[in-house]
Amino acid sequence: MRDLRTRLSRITDLNHAAALLEWDQETYMPSGAAESRARQVATLRSLAHELLTADETVTLLEFAVPDSDIDADLIRVVKKDVTKATKVPSSLIAEMAEAAGLSKGAWQKARQTNDFDIFAPHLSKIVELAVRHAEALGYDETPYDALLDQYEEGMTTSQVQSVFSGLKDELVPIVKTIAEATPLSDSIVHGHFPKESQWKFGLDVAQQMGYDLNHGRQDVSTHPFSTAFSITDVRITTRIDPEFFNPGFFGTLHEAGHALYEQGIDPGLEGSPLADGTSLGMHESQSRLWENLIGRNRPFWQHYYPQAQEVFPAAFGGVDFESFFRSINAVAPSPIRVEADEVTYNLHIMLRFELEQDMIAGRIATKDLPREWNDRMEAWLGIRPENDAEGVLQDIHWSLGAIGYFPTYALGNLMSVQLFNAASDALPNLDQMTSEGRFEELLSWLRLNVHQWGRRRSADEILLDATGSGLSAEPWLNYVRKKFGDLYDF
Amino acid sequence: MRDLRTRLSRITDLNHAAALLEWDQETYMPSGAAESRARQVATLRSLAHELLTADETVTLLEFAVPDSDIDADLIRVVKKDVTKATKVPSSLIAEMAEAAGLSKGAWQKARQTNDFDIFAPHLSKIVELAVRHAEALGYDETPYDALLDQYEEGMTTSQVQSVFSGLKDELVPIVKTIAEATPLSDSIVHGHFPKESQWKFGLDVAQQMGYDLNHGRQDVSTHPFSTAFSITDVRITTRIDPEFFNPGFFGTLHEAGHALYEQGIDPGLEGSPLADGTSLGMHESQSRLWENLIGRNRPFWQHYYPQAQEVFPAAFGGVDFESFFRSINAVAPSPIRVEADEVTYNLHIMLRFELEQDMIAGRIATKDLPREWNDRMEAWLGIRPENDAEGVLQDIHWSLGAIGYFPTYALGNLMSVQLFNAASDALPNLDQMTSEGRFEELLSWLRLNVHQWGRRRSADEILLDATGSGLSAEPWLNYVRKKFGDLYDF
Repeated sequence: MRDLRTRLSRITDLNHAAALLEWDQETYMPSGAAESRARQVATLRSLAHELLTADETVTLLEFAVPDSDIDADLIRVVKKDVTKATKVPSSLIAEMAEAAGLSKGAWQKARQTNDFDIFAPHLSKIVELAVRHAEALGYDETPYDALLDQYEEGMTTSQVQSVFSGLKDELVPIVKTIAEATPLSDSIVHGHFPKESQWKFGLDVAQQMGYDLNHGRQDVSTHPFSTAFSITDVRITTRIDPEFFNPGFFGTLHEAGHALYEQGIDPGLEGSPLADGTSLGMHESQSRLWENLIGRNRPFWQHYYPQAQEVFPAAFGGVDFESFFRSINAVAPSPIRVEADEVTYNLHIMLRFELEQDMIAGRIATKDLPREWNDRMEAWLGIRPENDAEGVLQDIHWSLGAIGYFPTYALGNLMSVQLFNAASDALPNLDQMTSEGRFEELLSWLRLNVHQWGRRRSADEILLDATGSGLSAEPWLNYVRKKFGDLYDF
Repeated sequence: MRDLRTRLSRITDLNHAAALLEWDQETYMPSGAAESRARQVATLRSLAHELLTADETVTLLEFAVPDSDIDADLIRVVKKDVTKATKVPSSLIAEMAEAAGLSKGAWQKARQTNDFDIFAPHLSKIVELAVRHAEALGYDETPYDALLDQYEEGMTTSQVQSVFSGLKDELVPIVKTIAEATPLSDSIVHGHFPKESQWKFGLDVAQQMGYDLNHGRQDVSTHPFSTAFSITDVRITTRIDPEFFNPGFFGTLHEAGHALYEQGIDPGLEGSPLADGTSLGMHESQSRLWENLIGRNRPFWQHYYPQAQEVFPAAFGGVDFESFFRSINAVAPSPIRVEADEVTYNLHIMLRFELEQDMIAGRIATKDLPREWNDRMEAWLGIRPENDAEGVLQDIHWSLGAIGYFPTYALGNLMSVQLFNAASDALPNLDQMTSEGRFEELLSWLRLNVHQWGRRRSADEILLDATGSGLSAEPWLNYVRKKFGDLYDF
């Protein structure tokens, strides 16, 4: 067992070193170092993969005698990792890496010049490789199962379909109703917000949520993200727009939510492959819980709005609470996913989920994708992208070969409400505490029920234990109906 | 050959990733992550060591057929690396790492409390391990040869002894003469120097020297250093004292000098173990050349002093050139090595070199070290440390197990003058160019003669080819006699 632990700790160290190389690339790396950095990341990831799939690892796993429950979980989880990692031939991994490398550049160019044809042949290749990848990984019902399982272990396509289809049927009419209601103005959050003040205000709130800067830090990057190099080193990045309050502030809360998850993992798992989020959906549930369920709710701003008014007197000084609160909760269908509000966001995801399945099943040819995209966008959200740059070309994911990733965003939204409701039941004065800027009890509840487990429990198990039920869209729909029914009078 | 190259490139990538982990530790890492970071660095260094000494590497080296001169050099240099790395049993490496880990903490405490007894048993252990290390590595004449060779390949103890003894005999009287002369005041460089202005001024000059920020960057750290993750990513750090001009400015020039060396390595060596400085002495010659031979000479300040007066009007506005120039060149024996001026610095090194040999040979017992230190300090520099914190406990090196390292500082000083003289011969209007802030031709000369080679040529070979002679103290002594004879009238 000790040899196994040592070996797995070395693999984890390699992956975390690769993560630091990537963090550095997005934050401080000089621009001329991109090529050598790409080689270094590839080397470390390959070495980690080789060590994981080596005969010695397999033998150690076979003969390991667990000393504890953690050991037993470690053996179980890593056996699965090894099985998956062994199934895909390294020639296919290399082919996918090469295709992604070429495709990313083509996508960037296609998006800049608004010319889908530049990206189309690459996307066809990516889809073809994804199908082969799925065949190599194996699946029960449909190749898409294998792709989804990479990001949301144990979740099947049919499960997601059944949850999403109910959601879509309910959500499209809600969006339509809101579109026809008197719109809420969001002009208040557009104005002058000095960068340093935004930086400090966001980070102060993140710390009050419980984000620990002795074991984390915040830096600037073009695309915000969170990353962990150990349980004791969990970092976030933020992008600040001096003319727009939302991206900096809610982005910080979102990334801090991710970071709180990783900082809350049982220290006994440090250095092991169990010290990670259990799935992307569960990870997203934590970022969304803090960003939206806390950060966009009324009690939160009862505490923080007076502070925000002091920090941003020019923008908020003369604005009453209700106008501000409506401004951060305005719903307006937009063609762009990353700019979407709480209500419409899931429709963006479901659109991608459907199209991904259609592409993998060969039901949609690449060349027809832009039209399909725009048609569904119009049917669901009532708007038609003016061009492919704000349509099918807007996201980087497919160009990197990540098919099966998008659904986890919506799963995270749904889980965030299920978990928040369970926390509210367990902590009857949660709103009261939130309105006083006190988050210790909520964080403790999340640590106990979600964070501490790392990968020892699956997302399904965590959800069931914490909420008493499996994944469901109903709680999220009820939350939306209540919150936005109040705001939009329906 | 291709398999060998790939394998060596992976080893290099691992070492460079470890270097990034270390850089991050000194610049941005949150304080609570020290323990996991130490484990990660150790993992990557061990993996690199294992890959280097693996049978497969040995076989590849044995059967490699070089396609080029670079390949031939690669095989030759790496064979030596493997031989050395294989000689030391991993049990001894582990023992040394453990001793260093314990010793560093003891040294810190000893230094803080000014109590040598806390450090003494650890130092005894370090010395004992260094002897065993030397025995494992093997040597011709004396165990110290093996220790020195780790940092200055090919240099022997007797070579260094012969160069240093001549140097000491000449230098001690010079220091005495200067100590008895009318002192130069350095009060001018003590004053108010705003941090941001220092930062920008130092970095501007470094860039004008040729330091390329597309392939480098500057950050803050407690102890300044330079480090490279590839030829295209060579970074420096700086520490700025708002009340003292020298550490920030000359520290930046020093580190930029190191960085220019690594940025100037032949791009064809990228990713290979040849893409590194050839020895610590040669590396130090580059930092010292820019810091002292250029950065403390008269033509340099003819160009930059007017700029410095504009940047620091409060401190330099009313100060004439000559007073400033004397202020940055004032000689004053100090007990502290890192605060030493150009003239006395080498005596600090020679003191350590002698004591190291005495310890390794068992001629000095650890308990007698403080007295020996203070006695020689008094004899050579005319001052006696008031306590061990500013005496034998001042440097971190021994606590880390680095014995044989110190001499390279003085070797760098000597080489810097030899190389500068050769460059001056080749570029008759070097002073003129310096006085115009133009360094392209000097940098080109250094790249051609020193930088480009990486580890393809030894320090000895570079010195011989570039200057026509081997290591010698005479040029340095002549430089000191001339420059400080002028300043101190002797």
